[in-house]
Amino acid sequence: MTRIDELPLRDELRGKTPYGAPQLDVPVRLNTNENPYPLPEPLVARIAERVAEAARHLNRYPDRDATELRTGLAAYLTRNTGYAVTRAHVWAANGSNEVLQQLLQTFGGPGRTALGFEPSYSMHALISRGTGTGWLHGPRREDFTIDVEAAERTIAEQRPDVVFVCSPNNPTGTAVEAETVLRLYEAAQAAKPSMVVVDEAYGEFSHRPSLLPLLEGRPHLAVSRTMSKAFGAAGLRLGYLAADPAVVDAVQLVRLPYHLSSVTQATALAALEHTDTLLGYVEQLKAERDRLVTELRALGCDVTDSDANFVQFGRFDDAHATWQALLDHGVLVRDNGVPGRLRVTAGTPAENDAFLDAMRAVLKENNR
Amino acid sequence: MTRIDELPLRDELRGKTPYGAPQLDVPVRLNTNENPYPLPEPLVARIAERVAEAARHLNRYPDRDATELRTGLAAYLTRNTGYAVTRAHVWAANGSNEVLQQLLQTFGGPGRTALGFEPSYSMHALISRGTGTGWLHGPRREDFTIDVEAAERTIAEQRPDVVFVCSPNNPTGTAVEAETVLRLYEAAQAAKPSMVVVDEAYGEFSHRPSLLPLLEGRPHLAVSRTMSKAFGAAGLRLGYLAADPAVVDAVQLVRLPYHLSSVTQATALAALEHTDTLLGYVEQLKAERDRLVTELRALGCDVTDSDANFVQFGRFDDAHATWQALLDHGVLVRDNGVPGRLRVTAGTPAENDAFLDAMRAVLKENNR
Repeated sequence: MTRIDELPLRDELRGKTPYGAPQLDVPVRLNTNENPYPLPEPLVARIAERVAEAARHLNRYPDRDATELRTGLAAYLTRNTGYAVTRAHVWAANGSNEVLQQLLQTFGGPGRTALGFEPSYSMHALISRGTGTGWLHGPRREDFTIDVEAAERTIAEQRPDVVFVCSPNNPTGTAVEAETVLRLYEAAQAAKPSMVVVDEAYGEFSHRPSLLPLLEGRPHLAVSRTMSKAFGAAGLRLGYLAADPAVVDAVQLVRLPYHLSSVTQATALAALEHTDTLLGYVEQLKAERDRLVTELRALGCDVTDSDANFVQFGRFDDAHATWQALLDHGVLVRDNGVPGRLRVTAGTPAENDAFLDAMRAVLKENNR
Repeated sequence: MTRIDELPLRDELRGKTPYGAPQLDVPVRLNTNENPYPLPEPLVARIAERVAEAARHLNRYPDRDATELRTGLAAYLTRNTGYAVTRAHVWAANGSNEVLQQLLQTFGGPGRTALGFEPSYSMHALISRGTGTGWLHGPRREDFTIDVEAAERTIAEQRPDVVFVCSPNNPTGTAVEAETVLRLYEAAQAAKPSMVVVDEAYGEFSHRPSLLPLLEGRPHLAVSRTMSKAFGAAGLRLGYLAADPAVVDAVQLVRLPYHLSSVTQATALAALEHTDTLLGYVEQLKAERDRLVTELRALGCDVTDSDANFVQFGRFDDAHATWQALLDHGVLVRDNGVPGRLRVTAGTPAENDAFLDAMRAVLKENNR
């Protein structure tokens, strides 16, 4: 049997392991920020209907420009954020991971660098590595907010080509103020100019308005989003971005042709038809998220303010031991490697109750 | 309005245009090697059924390892090629373009090079560029076969990290003999060692057996395939590869997590259930392809032997003028930039008749 290190793979991949949370079969899975609510049956039926229509032409390549889907996403963004965008401002791909990969292939890549404020969504660094883009660590304060003055200095010194701002930030839940993004954008323009990419994967769960209106007059800004969370469609892999139409034109220089299948486009269009129902689940999840924050604090936990569908909590002398103890109680949360902290996804009320019960049991065991 | 060149995009992208054949609305489209036969209705119904099942869990991420699908593809490959492979030998992604991109991210990339024998599938060079891999031009003979001695010399001199062999070759239709691939593989091992990637997107249409059995004992070989052509599912975007399990493990270091959506996996599984019917269409298309070769030769054309579902024909003093003349007659073929030649996809008998009629008319006009 051939071992992986006998292959002529790139040096920087040697000894690495693939990204991905453990996929364990346990009663309560609150580890990957999935939406706990299955799609409603009328939407399932509509998906089957639209996919069947698409399947009748499946021998043909999909619409390479995803025209109808981008129009629908633009209408949704306009409605959800109050900032008017059109199809020309919107691009879609297989998950926001692919959107970010395309942005890095266009604006990052070999000989260039990207900066992120860590802890943050670890795929920003991994996709940078995968596209040959150097990775720069930006600072966060102890409360996980971005220290703007320190960030401005880092940008001026390091002159990154791409700056990632994740808001609400994964895994901390921290939203970023518009004023902060503006100052980072100005610093990035003064230093290079560079692209600023705002990752709003959890935007719909925030107490604050979207950062989308910042696009006005800022052609070097892009805002990425996903249907994985608010639309309850992690299995669909549909990410998208809004930006100046020139950015949308630019990523088409690197996108794989016909990257977005006809069935993906059809399914996403069906989901957009059911936006109202799906956003209703978002409101329930926001209430449950707030309940998790309150109850974890009542248990004496140090909880980071959350604008997302998950909550970062601690502090633990040994976070991984607590992760394992919760798993022993049948509850899977996420250890993102943030010292002393864990992350729990807001599930259904019953799932959250199960998690809180497990937490109480674990804390009791620890105090014995 | 911002222009694309006002953005801080990578230098090598400046002035480039996105890849893609013109998508024109004409009566007879024989330009992108699509299968002309729509999926049969029982398969459309089965797709709707399997996608509906998948949609009920769409709030959850897809199976990251596509276990069931890879098992199904392995069974198909074993049956279609007579060479037994298992799930461990198979990897799948959004079109063979994404498979090739993952291979280049793993074995090519910045500071490395890939070699292809041109004219060939132009995405090999474009995906190399997109992944920061240097591109090397390998020689072909005037009859579009690979000159093995010349190729061995080129490999020894240039020491590429990845060698692409497209068989049957797009756009020429030329199959590559197993003996040739073996010699290229040996040359590539002696020079570096490097990965050899055999692109068998059109493998099912060939008069010759698949090159898959060459995998035996050759861990630096990968064979890529697609459901776009033989399975009549270009809209599905399902490409896959067979290789040593170590290669499958290696590409997982660069694949985007959850890259393959639940709806894509469900649709592909439905199509695999209908393999017999779909391969029946392949036999019809092979007969039509052979008819196109015969009739084009009868018209006095210089036609390259074809093992694919398309035919390269010429010679024309001005191939693009002939392309335009055929379009004026309502038939869209492909100008791949091969001097004096055009490429026509084998369509339905009626489409091929329409193409041949248009050719007769164009040749008559030219002789006036």
